[in-house]
Amino acid sequence: MSIDTLLAGVHFPDDMPAFDIGWRSLAVNLSDLAAMGATPRWCLLSLALPAVDDAWLAGFRDGFYALAEQSGITLVGGDTVRGPLAVTVQVTGEVPEGLALTRAGASAGERLCISGVPGEAAAGLALWQGGARGGPLVGALARPAAPVRLGESLRGLASACIDISDGLLPDLGHLLAASGLSGADIQLAQLPLSEALGQWGDDDQRRRAQLVGGDDYLLLFTLPDTALLPPECSVIGRVTNDAGVRLLDADGHEWPLPSGGYDHFAGDH
Amino acid sequence: MSIDTLLAGVHFPDDMPAFDIGWRSLAVNLSDLAAMGATPRWCLLSLALPAVDDAWLAGFRDGFYALAEQSGITLVGGDTVRGPLAVTVQVTGEVPEGLALTRAGASAGERLCISGVPGEAAAGLALWQGGARGGPLVGALARPAAPVRLGESLRGLASACIDISDGLLPDLGHLLAASGLSGADIQLAQLPLSEALGQWGDDDQRRRAQLVGGDDYLLLFTLPDTALLPPECSVIGRVTNDAGVRLLDADGHEWPLPSGGYDHFAGDH
Repeated sequence: MSIDTLLAGVHFPDDMPAFDIGWRSLAVNLSDLAAMGATPRWCLLSLALPAVDDAWLAGFRDGFYALAEQSGITLVGGDTVRGPLAVTVQVTGEVPEGLALTRAGASAGERLCISGVPGEAAAGLALWQGGARGGPLVGALARPAAPVRLGESLRGLASACIDISDGLLPDLGHLLAASGLSGADIQLAQLPLSEALGQWGDDDQRRRAQLVGGDDYLLLFTLPDTALLPPECSVIGRVTNDAGVRLLDADGHEWPLPSGGYDHFAGDH
Repeated sequence: MSIDTLLAGVHFPDDMPAFDIGWRSLAVNLSDLAAMGATPRWCLLSLALPAVDDAWLAGFRDGFYALAEQSGITLVGGDTVRGPLAVTVQVTGEVPEGLALTRAGASAGERLCISGVPGEAAAGLALWQGGARGGPLVGALARPAAPVRLGESLRGLASACIDISDGLLPDLGHLLAASGLSGADIQLAQLPLSEALGQWGDDDQRRRAQLVGGDDYLLLFTLPDTALLPPECSVIGRVTNDAGVRLLDADGHEWPLPSGGYDHFAGDH
């Protein structure tokens, strides 16, 4: 089970289309189920709206149901109140006893893997703030995939798993802490890059987006060497018991860690 | 399963103590489970707070956990965000297959019953708005009981059940509509009255509070004549297939229905 509240202006831009808000509010919750390897079952929705706006509601509903149908989750109840725009979604999933994935369980030496291209949502946000309203990077921000089928396939395979909401390095820190590990070596050249992200920003902006950009809702997981890497996933390094996380380029040189965490669209989250 | 969002200034007074907000935000959700005859199991909490305030959080936690412990529900997850004060609670309960109570199922002629004294919360709100901060009526508003044990005991007994959040008459309307019935006769002299409510306001104010005052979170249910009335419950009339709800005094005279619905603390809900 999981619950998440998204506030306008904090967790999504005030002027994001209603379809995307509907999609995204469910996606961020499904991402939590995916990280546990759970099969989505039921959800409830509580919606605070400043006023009744039929066109907005129709768009929100279409976006929410589009992802609900795709992921096989059923909306079973809800609540509406009048107030500043806020969306709370609660999700329940099922996983066979003993097979739920957690952040704990990674062992030193295991491969560190990621389920897609990190940094696209952060680049999409920068583009959005510059006025862009379309394209693949804005799409990654507005309509993140909810990797629930991948999460299910990682049951009994991944030793630890977390979804990336705060950023690759911050969420890696959560996984390491829960697993009682102290370090990781990340091969920068193995960070997957899409064509769209490769054409965005400069090297430094891209590296920051990939390492500390949030809101990608990908899965970050560890795999023992005996386990096959699932399709469309990449090995980006290994977890260790060394002191801290190291960023290594193709020549084995260490790069400095980007400073700062991730602040979503404004302030705390 | 049920979910409810409570907004400061809408669903509770801005200056309500944190303990009471914690208690109340769980109580209004447990009330939904009680109305289904469900045994409370798990809950999740999403809290939007304008700023971190340790004393406020400690009070909120104490109130929430006091009722959680009393009702046997376990908090299994949550979320905090920075924003205007809002509390969303989602609850899951269990009920044996086929025994869940619903609003539908009442038959014409059955007794209409209530689980406590309606109107106390509305009187408490009026007192609160006049500056009162203690006493049994303010307590009924701030810390409503969550009649989950009664709800369980009504399984297989009550033919229909609803919790009173909007007011006795509005929620009776929901029960009648769901049951396909068109009327009810309410015996005004049988509406239970407490000592505190009996000393509050004039006859007209009391009658309005009892019939259309909200936020009592009592159970309103129908009982076939063969079923025993549970302790601390009162028969207040019968549901019918006549045209509309009638209010009858001890002499059989019909009284006019109070106008208007219930608006919580401000505007819509």
